[in-house]
Amino acid sequence: MPRFHRIAVGQYEEFRQPGAIKAAAAELFSTLTFVFAGQGSGMAFSKITKGGPTSPPGLVAAALAHGFGLFVAVSVGANISGGHVNPAVTFGAAIGGNLTLVRAVLYIIAQLLGSTVACILLAFSTGGLTTTAFALSGVSVWSAFVFEIVMTFGLVYTVYATALDPKKGDIGIIAPIAIGLIVGANILAGGAFTGASMNPAVSFGPALVSWDWTNHWVYWAGPLVGGGLAGVVYQLIFISHTHEPLPTGDY
Amino acid sequence: MPRFHRIAVGQYEEFRQPGAIKAAAAELFSTLTFVFAGQGSGMAFSKITKGGPTSPPGLVAAALAHGFGLFVAVSVGANISGGHVNPAVTFGAAIGGNLTLVRAVLYIIAQLLGSTVACILLAFSTGGLTTTAFALSGVSVWSAFVFEIVMTFGLVYTVYATALDPKKGDIGIIAPIAIGLIVGANILAGGAFTGASMNPAVSFGPALVSWDWTNHWVYWAGPLVGGGLAGVVYQLIFISHTHEPLPTGDY
Amino acid sequence: MPRFHRIAVGQYEEFRQPGAIKAAAAELFSTLTFVFAGQGSGMAFSKITKGGPTSPPGLVAAALAHGFGLFVAVSVGANISGGHVNPAVTFGAAIGGNLTLVRAVLYIIAQLLGSTVACILLAFSTGGLTTTAFALSGVSVWSAFVFEIVMTFGLVYTVYATALDPKKGDIGIIAPIAIGLIVGANILAGGAFTGASMNPAVSFGPALVSWDWTNHWVYWAGPLVGGGLAGVVYQLIFISHTHEPLPTGDY
Amino acid sequence: MPRFHRIAVGQYEEFRQPGAIKAAAAELFSTLTFVFAGQGSGMAFSKITKGGPTSPPGLVAAALAHGFGLFVAVSVGANISGGHVNPAVTFGAAIGGNLTLVRAVLYIIAQLLGSTVACILLAFSTGGLTTTAFALSGVSVWSAFVFEIVMTFGLVYTVYATALDPKKGDIGIIAPIAIGLIVGANILAGGAFTGASMNPAVSFGPALVSWDWTNHWVYWAGPLVGGGLAGVVYQLIFISHTHEPLPTGDY
Repeated sequence: MPRFHRIAVGQYEEFRQPGAIKAAAAELFSTLTFVFAGQGSGMAFSKITKGGPTSPPGLVAAALAHGFGLFVAVSVGANISGGHVNPAVTFGAAIGGNLTLVRAVLYIIAQLLGSTVACILLAFSTGGLTTTAFALSGVSVWSAFVFEIVMTFGLVYTVYATALDPKKGDIGIIAPIAIGLIVGANILAGGAFTGASMNPAVSFGPALVSWDWTNHWVYWAGPLVGGGLAGVVYQLIFISHTHEPLPTGDY
Repeated sequence: MPRFHRIAVGQYEEFRQPGAIKAAAAELFSTLTFVFAGQGSGMAFSKITKGGPTSPPGLVAAALAHGFGLFVAVSVGANISGGHVNPAVTFGAAIGGNLTLVRAVLYIIAQLLGSTVACILLAFSTGGLTTTAFALSGVSVWSAFVFEIVMTFGLVYTVYATALDPKKGDIGIIAPIAIGLIVGANILAGGAFTGASMNPAVSFGPALVSWDWTNHWVYWAGPLVGGGLAGVVYQLIFISHTHEPLPTGDY
Repeated sequence: MPRFHRIAVGQYEEFRQPGAIKAAAAELFSTLTFVFAGQGSGMAFSKITKGGPTSPPGLVAAALAHGFGLFVAVSVGANISGGHVNPAVTFGAAIGGNLTLVRAVLYIIAQLLGSTVACILLAFSTGGLTTTAFALSGVSVWSAFVFEIVMTFGLVYTVYATALDPKKGDIGIIAPIAIGLIVGANILAGGAFTGASMNPAVSFGPALVSWDWTNHWVYWAGPLVGGGLAGVVYQLIFISHTHEPLPTGDY
Repeated sequence: MPRFHRIAVGQYEEFRQPGAIKAAAAELFSTLTFVFAGQGSGMAFSKITKGGPTSPPGLVAAALAHGFGLFVAVSVGANISGGHVNPAVTFGAAIGGNLTLVRAVLYIIAQLLGSTVACILLAFSTGGLTTTAFALSGVSVWSAFVFEIVMTFGLVYTVYATALDPKKGDIGIIAPIAIGLIVGANILAGGAFTGASMNPAVSFGPALVSWDWTNHWVYWAGPLVGGGLAGVVYQLIFISHTHEPLPTGDY
């Protein structure tokens, strides 16, 4: 009932609600946990290969670290904040009317903060290794932009189908698994080209800590366009026309 | 209730139903997402190994990309279209009477279109790398044919047991996991011999975009024979004789 | 209610029941699917490494193929036969009184047949590659015997805790996942020493087709001792004394 | 109802309860199974690489063996003991008032015993290979200490959010998956630096059997500080103030 919520409470009132602050705290801890494992796995790869190039086992390790970590981050946050841990998901959800603007801003701040704290903790824990920023690998900035759009479209489409669609039924376990695994699968494809971020918070922390902003806009524009597009498309095709009886599928 | 549905609506009426069109759209988006990650992981492998031969880590990456991606594709489509994302599954389901012919044709067109769009997007996103067609590796065309039959039999048998069998109970989460993982497991076996397609849509997009139709019939005939066989066998042995009380198993 | 079932029907009557035959057919198809993927992944490894030695990526591939394949085999059989796909599981379940002797024999025959058919199909599908029998690698036969005992103890203990224990609750999805993953985890340990069979049917098919029976008894004795032990231990400690109120655990 | 339980029964009475002893037995068997697969996978890696250095496939194997094994260990213990299999989890749960002190001590003894038995069985099963103790790799003891704190914080935070939080709902399957996968994800990051124990029992068995106590305190202090911190933080922020209506999240 986000629409009712918006009218009844008022956007600026929400700052005073313990609910919104708790939800932001949940986003912070979830993003911290996710980025610590994901970014940490990249630093482990750099260490044990002495800075070697991406290899198939390295992609598998990155896919599992991010896929498993994101499943956990979504699961632990689900009952408190919804477990977005991603500004593109928050943006896509807000576009479909599932979130107030104030709460969306609060979430995104918490996500960026969680990612930054994770990178600082990693720098100390690894004895001072650098958390390298996301970078393009052999593709133009426009190819990377489209790559991030398509991958994040898939991610936010998945969020809609498994978590936000009112007819999704009682499938509380499917949402976090699907969200984690679509990111894992996409990393096995896009990891070798753009790093496969699909998440501005994931790219922001390493960029800030290593102070490397080369092509950083791609990791905001791609996910936000892809996520926003998924929100609009899913809403228009699969949710909006609910005044007509919907098919239940063939099984 | 597909049988009732068929009589009440009529096959050609279905084109005018928003339900069938929405279901086809869901098949298109699901197949696009699945093929983008799966085929993309193969292109990433080619890129980072500079076109090297299949290796154990490469098979693991392919198995995870397809297994994870298929789980997601089935999950997000389940409540709208049933989440077939595979002409062999649609064919196997139709043989068991779980789908009208019109809807089956609509699904298959959407699946082929989704796969093709995924391959076009991949060509752009990767800066023009080729999406290579499925090919036999060191086996005769008849060995490959049997390989694809056996693997797709396993896949569609799994679809029946977990999603179409009326006595499957309330196991909505088991179906997408089992469907994704049987494909992942089979890729670890067949990936080194036939590419382990089990899905004509997955083979069609890359063949079309790279315009390489060598042995392409194997990737239609094998899955359709295997999928059809599974539909007939499961229906005959495990579903048909429901006038006799069925055992509930020992646990 | 296996105990009641046994009295009411009589052991030899069961052969005439369609239920027992259907259940055996389900065991056959499930074991075929499982062994085809698992054993096939080993043959794929041999092919792409040109018969090279076990490597960490090879162990990962074997663990995933068997873990994923077993999850599927258990899931698709669960509602028909219980999804044992393993003589050690059938034996362990029978020892705890969860299965009649006749049905147990029928299951084991079906499992051995399914494994054999899978190996024959693999021989044809791979263009005549050999399905090598399980073999010890650098350990004595007694070490291997204990290794198989401990691993199968863990497997059948898991079957009891997640599928046969009356107080397991409504956790229909946990059983197949846990059963698949304990086998996957154990392969990552034992695969480099004994091949990590934990399942006489899995070892029987390759031994028969390659006609190599060296140390084959280890792959029967180890799993049957380990499985039987788990049945006895779990029954004695966690099920038998149900006349005393059981703790519900702390969460 | 741990608080009521404590008052009604009395701490020292609990030793005489069959429930507490059974729960301790469940902890022992679960920890044995978990450590056998996890530590065994490390010994398999050493064997097949002839003692080679950590590599990306080795990290993946370790992450899967521990992640899969822990999922199983938690699942099989869940209905009997809660499935802690980790002194840091038991400590973190006790701090939040979810466990009596006596039961906590009993659990930890059972966990240490299970780990030790697993290592002894591994020594025999592998034909006398050594179970090497956890060790720091290129980081100072303080970096390792913080690394273990952060990783165990994430683990116990996950235990709270998915298993101990009263508003977690009916998500019995999410807890063991999330607990297994956060450990798997963290191993992909920390495995190359501290071994990523997050669990004093996991480090204790190998240290005892190999009699190597170098920096062993880090593997107790780090997990206990991180786990305790997670218990306090989660309790304070997300559970304590339940007299105010909690938000239900946006989805």
